[in-house]
Amino acid sequence: MLAAGGADVSTDEDRRDGQQWAGGCASLVRVTETVGSAPDHGVIDGAPSVPTPLVATGPAPRPSAAEEARTLVAATNVAAIATLTADGDPWASLITYGALDDGAPVLCLSRLAEHGRNLAADPRASLVITQIDRPPDPLAAARVTLAGRAERPSDAASLAAARATHLTAVPAASTYIDFSDFSLWILRIDRVRWVGGYGRMDSASGPAYAAAQPDPVATGAAAAIAHLNADHADALLAIARALGGYPDATTARCSGLDRRGIDLALDTPRGRAPARVSFSATLTQSAQLRAATVELTRRARAAATAP
Amino acid sequence: MLAAGGADVSTDEDRRDGQQWAGGCASLVRVTETVGSAPDHGVIDGAPSVPTPLVATGPAPRPSAAEEARTLVAATNVAAIATLTADGDPWASLITYGALDDGAPVLCLSRLAEHGRNLAADPRASLVITQIDRPPDPLAAARVTLAGRAERPSDAASLAAARATHLTAVPAASTYIDFSDFSLWILRIDRVRWVGGYGRMDSASGPAYAAAQPDPVATGAAAAIAHLNADHADALLAIARALGGYPDATTARCSGLDRRGIDLALDTPRGRAPARVSFSATLTQSAQLRAATVELTRRARAAATAP
Repeated sequence: MLAAGGADVSTDEDRRDGQQWAGGCASLVRVTETVGSAPDHGVIDGAPSVPTPLVATGPAPRPSAAEEARTLVAATNVAAIATLTADGDPWASLITYGALDDGAPVLCLSRLAEHGRNLAADPRASLVITQIDRPPDPLAAARVTLAGRAERPSDAASLAAARATHLTAVPAASTYIDFSDFSLWILRIDRVRWVGGYGRMDSASGPAYAAAQPDPVATGAAAAIAHLNADHADALLAIARALGGYPDATTARCSGLDRRGIDLALDTPRGRAPARVSFSATLTQSAQLRAATVELTRRARAAATAP
Repeated sequence: MLAAGGADVSTDEDRRDGQQWAGGCASLVRVTETVGSAPDHGVIDGAPSVPTPLVATGPAPRPSAAEEARTLVAATNVAAIATLTADGDPWASLITYGALDDGAPVLCLSRLAEHGRNLAADPRASLVITQIDRPPDPLAAARVTLAGRAERPSDAASLAAARATHLTAVPAASTYIDFSDFSLWILRIDRVRWVGGYGRMDSASGPAYAAAQPDPVATGAAAAIAHLNADHADALLAIARALGGYPDATTARCSGLDRRGIDLALDTPRGRAPARVSFSATLTQSAQLRAATVELTRRARAAATAP
């Protein structure tokens, strides 16, 4: 659902309706759309409204929840795991993982550790993985919950692949992966819940998660964003005005970059607004970010000077 | 138990026997003690042994597991929570908290979020909280699992205290704490499992956790450690040689500071070893760290020049 603030808010509605969010704005916004009869926070009066675009822009597709999830999972090697004790109580602990090509996490756990004993007795497990560069407000961070069942690799080839995947992601595991009490587990994912921060969230199925690809420009995005904001405020403002639908923008900051486009956080005399502009083509590697943003700037300036 | 490496390894033995660890050394060490008939990793040959002290030193008490847990919980406001879905499946997600005086975490959750729905149906929950300055190797990080049952504050005074505690720890919650779908929950702790990194771990009961106090010097420890290592290598070496039991130490680095003493990581011609030296008195605030380490240095130098 579209959330006015707070944490990981979900309803059965939005699970059916698929991907929806409040424009990626991290601040508290008035809910201007409702989803069916989904419940809301019960308090929306007094929240500032977000100014709408003055110029219609084409659709600017965002990453799907499955893609967001795969990108978060690919970006790190550490997660919190929820397992079940012998009494069926939930147990939270810290683990490391590497992801197979379909995004299934490979764990290396000791049967002497509580989570290892738990999984051996009941294979149900869930991981939560949080973005690596955490914002000061913890709930502004992007995170993903993966839920499913853990299984041991079923044959020698599967075991070898799992082992190689884990060791590549967690080099320190080489010191204990061969201890007799450690085993490799593959978490087969049934259900995915992605939360992009305040007001951005969606669910994905196991098959959608497996079929999605991590964002190939994620590794270069943070540096590119810092560079754009430090040295190219004028270009960002030109993009916001000419291509983002906000000709009244007075400042624009890059708040995100992914394979399909750029997210902007901008100020207007009407208030703060998010905007998104698509690249001309979907990128396949970080090295293309520079050319893609230069091309957007060129297009924006050409539009601004057009008669 | 004393663990030769790997992750959160526990046995029923060490839960009965209380606090034990492999000297706080973060690297892979040979297990030189065994606990009853506790299982081990099955692979200890080939691991380097740790040189023992050449001079007997007095006991140098470390923080208890309950104290370590309270210190980790007091240091941040974000945790992963494990709850149970309607099917009894484990569900991992991200939450924020503030801790009451007895260390019980106060959560502020929406009933529209999965974890909020879960807790409303089954109050069993577990949190894992990880040290805030994470080392490059994720499993070298200190973390603590708290397990118990969540309950709503039972009266107006309890509600007011819970609300104030949460808002102090999580200022951003002021934007949503009064939304009608959000509720405060207090997690009453039954069981605590602390892992200090490789080979350092122990359990604590709920009452022991509640009775312990967070380390009052934790907030100043990181800066003091950095200063000691940057500017006072000679003093650290003098402490290691004269007071730490290693007169053959060739280098010494401060690896930890707490209310009761200093942890050192040192090199000797016999190999690397950890050492610990107690302060003359238990400290009550970070401002005392400087005087306490100066006093240790003075004592060490006096001992070194004694006839």
